Amino acid sequence: MAYNLLKGKKGLIFGALNEMSIAWKVAERAHEEGADIVLSNTAVAIRMGNVSELAEKCGALIIPADATNVNELESLISQAMEHFGGKIDFILHSIGMSPNVRKGRTYDDLDYDYLQKTLDISSISFHKVLQTCWKLDAIAQGGSVIALSYIAAQRTLYGYNDMADAKALLESIARSFGYIYGRERGVRINTISQSPTETTAGGGVMGFDSLLDFSNRMSPLGNADALDCADTCVMLFSDLSRKITMQNIYNDGGFSSMGMSNKAMAIYNRNLEECKDCK
Amino acid sequence: MAYNLLKGKKGLIFGALNEMSIAWKVAERAHEEGADIVLSNTAVAIRMGNVSELAEKCGALIIPADATNVNELESLISQAMEHFGGKIDFILHSIGMSPNVRKGRTYDDLDYDYLQKTLDISSISFHKVLQTCWKLDAIAQGGSVIALSYIAAQRTLYGYNDMADAKALLESIARSFGYIYGRERGVRINTISQSPTETTAGGGVMGFDSLLDFSNRMSPLGNADALDCADTCVMLFSDLSRKITMQNIYNDGGFSSMGMSNKAMAIYNRNLEECKDCK
Amino acid sequence: MAYNLLKGKKGLIFGALNEMSIAWKVAERAHEEGADIVLSNTAVAIRMGNVSELAEKCGALIIPADATNVNELESLISQAMEHFGGKIDFILHSIGMSPNVRKGRTYDDLDYDYLQKTLDISSISFHKVLQTCWKLDAIAQGGSVIALSYIAAQRTLYGYNDMADAKALLESIARSFGYIYGRERGVRINTISQSPTETTAGGGVMGFDSLLDFSNRMSPLGNADALDCADTCVMLFSDLSRKITMQNIYNDGGFSSMGMSNKAMAIYNRNLEECKDCK
Amino acid sequence: MAYNLLKGKKGLIFGALNEMSIAWKVAERAHEEGADIVLSNTAVAIRMGNVSELAEKCGALIIPADATNVNELESLISQAMEHFGGKIDFILHSIGMSPNVRKGRTYDDLDYDYLQKTLDISSISFHKVLQTCWKLDAIAQGGSVIALSYIAAQRTLYGYNDMADAKALLESIARSFGYIYGRERGVRINTISQSPTETTAGGGVMGFDSLLDFSNRMSPLGNADALDCADTCVMLFSDLSRKITMQNIYNDGGFSSMGMSNKAMAIYNRNLEECKDCK
Repeated sequence: MAYNLLKGKKGLIFGALNEMSIAWKVAERAHEEGADIVLSNTAVAIRMGNVSELAEKCGALIIPADATNVNELESLISQAMEHFGGKIDFILHSIGMSPNVRKGRTYDDLDYDYLQKTLDISSISFHKVLQTCWKLDAIAQGGSVIALSYIAAQRTLYGYNDMADAKALLESIARSFGYIYGRERGVRINTISQSPTETTAGGGVMGFDSLLDFSNRMSPLGNADALDCADTCVMLFSDLSRKITMQNIYNDGGFSSMGMSNKAMAIYNRNLEECKDCK
Repeated sequence: MAYNLLKGKKGLIFGALNEMSIAWKVAERAHEEGADIVLSNTAVAIRMGNVSELAEKCGALIIPADATNVNELESLISQAMEHFGGKIDFILHSIGMSPNVRKGRTYDDLDYDYLQKTLDISSISFHKVLQTCWKLDAIAQGGSVIALSYIAAQRTLYGYNDMADAKALLESIARSFGYIYGRERGVRINTISQSPTETTAGGGVMGFDSLLDFSNRMSPLGNADALDCADTCVMLFSDLSRKITMQNIYNDGGFSSMGMSNKAMAIYNRNLEECKDCK
Repeated sequence: MAYNLLKGKKGLIFGALNEMSIAWKVAERAHEEGADIVLSNTAVAIRMGNVSELAEKCGALIIPADATNVNELESLISQAMEHFGGKIDFILHSIGMSPNVRKGRTYDDLDYDYLQKTLDISSISFHKVLQTCWKLDAIAQGGSVIALSYIAAQRTLYGYNDMADAKALLESIARSFGYIYGRERGVRINTISQSPTETTAGGGVMGFDSLLDFSNRMSPLGNADALDCADTCVMLFSDLSRKITMQNIYNDGGFSSMGMSNKAMAIYNRNLEECKDCK
Repeated sequence: MAYNLLKGKKGLIFGALNEMSIAWKVAERAHEEGADIVLSNTAVAIRMGNVSELAEKCGALIIPADATNVNELESLISQAMEHFGGKIDFILHSIGMSPNVRKGRTYDDLDYDYLQKTLDISSISFHKVLQTCWKLDAIAQGGSVIALSYIAAQRTLYGYNDMADAKALLESIARSFGYIYGRERGVRINTISQSPTETTAGGGVMGFDSLLDFSNRMSPLGNADALDCADTCVMLFSDLSRKITMQNIYNDGGFSSMGMSNKAMAIYNRNLEECKDCK
């Protein structure tokens, strides 16, 4: 169902890889809502995934760029503005990767070059996108920017490793730059703290399936999926949310406000009895 | 501009008094978005204000009820369901009043009968609405409930008095009942933490004009007004936000994430110099 | 081990019932640290428990008072000041009770007279203590007041019922009055958000044992017990914390900052497999 | 006044430069409370400041180390353990510096090499200290680690620049490693969110004096100074706080829980009238 919420708006979406990607769903939904889209990802990801299929579906232009590279970002933003014939109305940052997670380095054994990469890719790239747009005056008055985050920024989850720190940094950047963009250009910057989601990226985290189940039973409405997230993005890109900025919006079925649910406790209790000595 | 976001939905709106009321704007916007509306307020408020004008504009039914009175709520909800020919899809609770504030009793000199009234009117009425709906199974699967709050629930503001405590209680009720409604009936319950807004209710707070100015200069996007709030309500009533629940959404131009802004500091600094001895 | 942290200080402690009470441990520890103590509880609780044993141990005076009754509080505070020969340096509020929990009324079936009692006993009594002390100018410059809270004020826990709302209200009162007391009299007001603790009061909550186990395995340091809480109270009563006010201090082994721990997940996973259909 | 709270404990303190440093006061107070101290800072800082004076006063050993360099940290920790003849009981991390702030690069014009240095010096150094200690098994069971933070980690303050993001990252590291250290070694890790403090480091922030005044008038107890902070550190290093971990403790006179105070508003209002057009 579409509402024309983004009619005439121009959006730049980072991070679509394949049909499972949240960014993919956001592109589809934004397109349905009337937006004109530019898709960006690294050249490698574009080769690996099937972004061209998405581009065709959405009538979108694909511009490869490494979001950690300011020169490539300048080129991307300039091309996008040229393609749009004007400023950008909304941006999605859905980029995150931890070499420490990938290489199985636990949090008490981090490789610091990897950590720097985790932060550069997952957090600082967001500042680079924003600063590049700032210098090119690329985001329209009333524009809206979203980065995808996770509750690990606030609470420690076994196995999430240095991505937790990356998300905390990401959310801080949203606030810090949100102040300046709001004051000077009337642009909103928010993060969405999304339920754990079965994407190519999410799958890398240790114990992901159990976490997904626990999260689902803890959340009164169950986990939010990629499409739920896309609809929340649409809302936050639309003019309806024009005074919401510097916020972290939990799109998580209620997980973040739960201490313990009946459903999760039922599982937990099942063999607590026989398991009193479990460590 | 309308998007048909609430097409076919049935909504119950508490607290419209006059054109300045947030609830008034919510009713107008919900109507524009295709919703069928029932308006409710106390009999006294309906006489004092011009709700009938709003009802005419929106093709809405007015049903008087004292939201602190469970019997009147039962009658209201039953009549609303009969009028709608089915369950309710969304509810706005915009009710708040402090006899202590009205009578000039400061927070260190509260009258405890008044405090009980403050809490009953401003907070517990929300539980009563929710429990009455629960028992009558009055809210549809996928429904959405919003209560209006203020950042005084988290941070102390000079002069806001026992309304701060009432808002903290209100937000807690939203979480507590949100868990049950989410789990059992797929219904969302959220609060919106709104910028200070020039309404008949808001005006009662001590030093309100200065607060409004400070808040405006602290907020990168400026204060959110009643219409901004109405649009946020529309989003949260719509299906787009179907997995957002038990949250307190700041619709405040960024105020809640600010420590100190350049604009507010400029005023502050002007005669800080000559005022070093000010108490 | 004692440090003389409260040497020469005079403290009023509400809520000691028996050896399991947190207030009991606080009284013992405060006494060991050199404080002079007055104990208060309702006349009924004093008869039911063995407070006189505690009083003897600590050389404390017992003054019965119903903390929901302003007249009795006035009498209590006046007597305490007379006994101390001066103002009070610290106060512990460890009072909470929900008739709804006791009578098995679930949160979707609250009795509103009971709810009012829950709030009056568990939250508003704290305002009454503070306001009575305010009017009698009973708390010394540099004084410190603590009320005991629980994370249910922030996150919903299955079965905690209207006590969650009571704790949210309690914490708000601490902030609201903390502002005034801080500004005018140099007095701190904080709440301690304590791990679930096996006391006579805690035992009433539905599913308490499972919750205790889950909480313990989620908390990196395990649950904090009554003595741990008492030591945190001693710190916050002492002059060392003289600039900490209006805060909610989590004394919970880290629970509040956890999303999911390895130990809790181990239990959860045990028969998740065979339990995929569990509701 | 001393209490022997840290009698027999061994502590490692990073970041003392001169008498104004918070770390300096912490060293003095820890020494008074009976602790044995090792002081560390960069070789440059040790030459620039007068740390040797502090070392003499406290009978402390100085070991130079660059906390961003893992090799130097290994050497430092090994030497400290050798000096102590055993494990370390507490650590203070009071390290922060932003080349962007120093060089006058505003947040919309960050140099990314500088940003990396900001994060490496102010945040990642904390992980490096913790990981080095982890690998050397250098922190005793029951040990306590503190890093100094600031409310800019949660709320944007004009002029605080990329140090805000650094503090957010720092607090996240405290939680992430706090989970592991708590679970495996019974060690606490917390941050203290301190009032703005007149130190050599604090002075670099734009508009610092005004901020200090505003913060002081907003805080019911006024700003906490370096000695207040030192006393809070002593509490958190002591056994009294043995179950408090992964927390961010506001030592700020109540600032963090304030929305607007009477005193700050008085200044603000003075020429609001004549300044209605100020931008």
